[in-house]
Amino acid sequence: MSTVTDIRAEEVEAGILRITLDGATTRNSIGRDQYDALRATLIDAATRRDLRAVVLTGAGGFFSSGGNVSALKEGRALPLSEVMKNTDALGAMILALRNCPLPVIGAVEGGAAGLGLALALSCDMLVASEAAKFTAAYVKIGLTPDGGTTHFLREALPRQLVSEMCLLGRPLPAARLHQAGAINLLTPEGGALEGAMELARACAKGPRTAMAAIKAEIEAAPLNGLAAQLDLEARGINTARYGDEAGEGLAAFLEKRTPDFGPQGGEGESR
Amino acid sequence: MSTVTDIRAEEVEAGILRITLDGATTRNSIGRDQYDALRATLIDAATRRDLRAVVLTGAGGFFSSGGNVSALKEGRALPLSEVMKNTDALGAMILALRNCPLPVIGAVEGGAAGLGLALALSCDMLVASEAAKFTAAYVKIGLTPDGGTTHFLREALPRQLVSEMCLLGRPLPAARLHQAGAINLLTPEGGALEGAMELARACAKGPRTAMAAIKAEIEAAPLNGLAAQLDLEARGINTARYGDEAGEGLAAFLEKRTPDFGPQGGEGESR
Amino acid sequence: MSTVTDIRAEEVEAGILRITLDGATTRNSIGRDQYDALRATLIDAATRRDLRAVVLTGAGGFFSSGGNVSALKEGRALPLSEVMKNTDALGAMILALRNCPLPVIGAVEGGAAGLGLALALSCDMLVASEAAKFTAAYVKIGLTPDGGTTHFLREALPRQLVSEMCLLGRPLPAARLHQAGAINLLTPEGGALEGAMELARACAKGPRTAMAAIKAEIEAAPLNGLAAQLDLEARGINTARYGDEAGEGLAAFLEKRTPDFGPQGGEGESR
Repeated sequence: MSTVTDIRAEEVEAGILRITLDGATTRNSIGRDQYDALRATLIDAATRRDLRAVVLTGAGGFFSSGGNVSALKEGRALPLSEVMKNTDALGAMILALRNCPLPVIGAVEGGAAGLGLALALSCDMLVASEAAKFTAAYVKIGLTPDGGTTHFLREALPRQLVSEMCLLGRPLPAARLHQAGAINLLTPEGGALEGAMELARACAKGPRTAMAAIKAEIEAAPLNGLAAQLDLEARGINTARYGDEAGEGLAAFLEKRTPDFGPQGGEGESR
Repeated sequence: MSTVTDIRAEEVEAGILRITLDGATTRNSIGRDQYDALRATLIDAATRRDLRAVVLTGAGGFFSSGGNVSALKEGRALPLSEVMKNTDALGAMILALRNCPLPVIGAVEGGAAGLGLALALSCDMLVASEAAKFTAAYVKIGLTPDGGTTHFLREALPRQLVSEMCLLGRPLPAARLHQAGAINLLTPEGGALEGAMELARACAKGPRTAMAAIKAEIEAAPLNGLAAQLDLEARGINTARYGDEAGEGLAAFLEKRTPDFGPQGGEGESR
Repeated sequence: MSTVTDIRAEEVEAGILRITLDGATTRNSIGRDQYDALRATLIDAATRRDLRAVVLTGAGGFFSSGGNVSALKEGRALPLSEVMKNTDALGAMILALRNCPLPVIGAVEGGAAGLGLALALSCDMLVASEAAKFTAAYVKIGLTPDGGTTHFLREALPRQLVSEMCLLGRPLPAARLHQAGAINLLTPEGGALEGAMELARACAKGPRTAMAAIKAEIEAAPLNGLAAQLDLEARGINTARYGDEAGEGLAAFLEKRTPDFGPQGGEGESR
């Protein structure tokens, strides 16, 4: 199931970890090895108190084509118990991304397809070049979506458009996802990575502990409903208000200066 | 409670069942008889392995005006136990549409009002002519929405716009629902049915079993949350990958030919 | 924790209660006293059978800047048990607004920030001037959102855009929320209040009991799912159909006249 795609992680600027799916000959297709490597990278990044943001991108002008079709075909000969190790690892990778306390910003050139689409949409913020296309074409090979594709699409778009994408496998242009608000920034071709870095730099100045709590609250909102979410937010702000980050933030605000949330970030535990 | 609207079902092309609400003198108003007939038609269609898509449309340049107002007025004289038979049948019709394993594509000319709006929005994909208007004006006759109107509107639009539609009874133009993504295709006046047929033809080439699983996954996503949806999708793809549809789809992809998912479709059970 | 913002309630036209956050020197910042006063005003308004709509606005060209930053800083010296009285009161205010049987229409000039944003988005309908900005910049002072901010934003916008607003504190222009459908009407500067009054006048002609039930159904829809929502709607319409409001509404429709839902409204209990 392994492919040649490397998962390269580099701290390209202070506080910013850039993760590159690097396997341009297969359009950065991913399988079991990549699921495990990306998950491990994200889990380890979360323990580093100096990091503030992760940028996730693909090499060679494409984000990721998802699963390798030859590997999918070979998978038919494997017992289900073996195949489930792959789908388990795949789900664990997606949950690691959503549970990562650091904001993850996706940078999409060219396109994102299949599991690559799920991975792109799992990011907290998303930058794409205008020419990029987003595709969930599992149906064209007789398969059904994975990696939370239907979850992520239904967060972003009405059911009818999600149905068109998943039942017919039709690509959606980046501009349509930008109009909906699921893509934060559209760039000219070749500009997605730099656009994502700009968002990451903004995150890098932010309060690490508060940002982690905010990400978790955003994630929990839809299933909580209003009353439970009010309670979650109250606990969140009542924890944050006594912390060092709020001390610095409130003081800076009243002193009309830029807050310094520091390379070590707030006082909280990493999650 | 009966009206003159016929529920006409015709296999107009291979694999495509067209259902027409045909009662143009009442703008295709529907009541108990139509609920039962439409539900039965959908349930029976699901057992036919040669069908791939359903197109739902209205005769005479309008989709459906929903419940007949005279019948609604007469209903006030009936005991609640009797009236509940109607609302039960109505809910069963809507659930039959959402639970139908075949993609259902709505074609709306003119407009869809009241329960007609719920019926239109319950479709998996929706085509409307540019001049069509969508109205939930129950409030204007002192009533409240039915048929899942508030569910379907909140799938597609922010709460504030749903409130305007339902509290004030204001119509929404097709272009607004298209912009949101709840209408897949806008056509010139008179073109909705042909537009819906185009989508149905695309479905007709698709893998029946996989499409049914995809529809069910799309339906389940919002209440599942991410972890449960990852599990549902994993079970879905792990079932699909061993099937005939995936066999054909993967082989065709690797052989660079168009897959033939056949008139009998995959190996799965109809649901 | 008190600020100088008054909560002024005036019946400016028949059936319409206008509530003004009036503390322009602090951009209508609000704290414990305002939470309690606004909640009490909403609860009492709900008992008045002659009211049909509430308009919520801010004095002095701004809606509300939310919590007072000096008070937030002082709060760090208070014990948590004391601070929780504030967050409890805050949550109770928001729930009072969502649970109010009357439609609440927000009128936003200038902007809404922090808890002011939550308050604006908690309204059933929202009117804003084109220049208004919506900001959830808690993160900039090392805090996390409160008042249901993350709940209300995720009702209206995809997760990625919500993340940008809450993780980076970036303002969203009124036009973007209007495009999404979370703002019902954009007006020229200075026109938001009159725009909200127009919506309130439309509500004032409506059936009080049915509108309350519709608001509750819209609120319940996302967590109910389709089957439970069909049941809720069936109970709603089966209660409404025997009532005086439906009697008048159906008769007026069949007699082709405007219904008169009267200053005392329907027969139902206030909730």
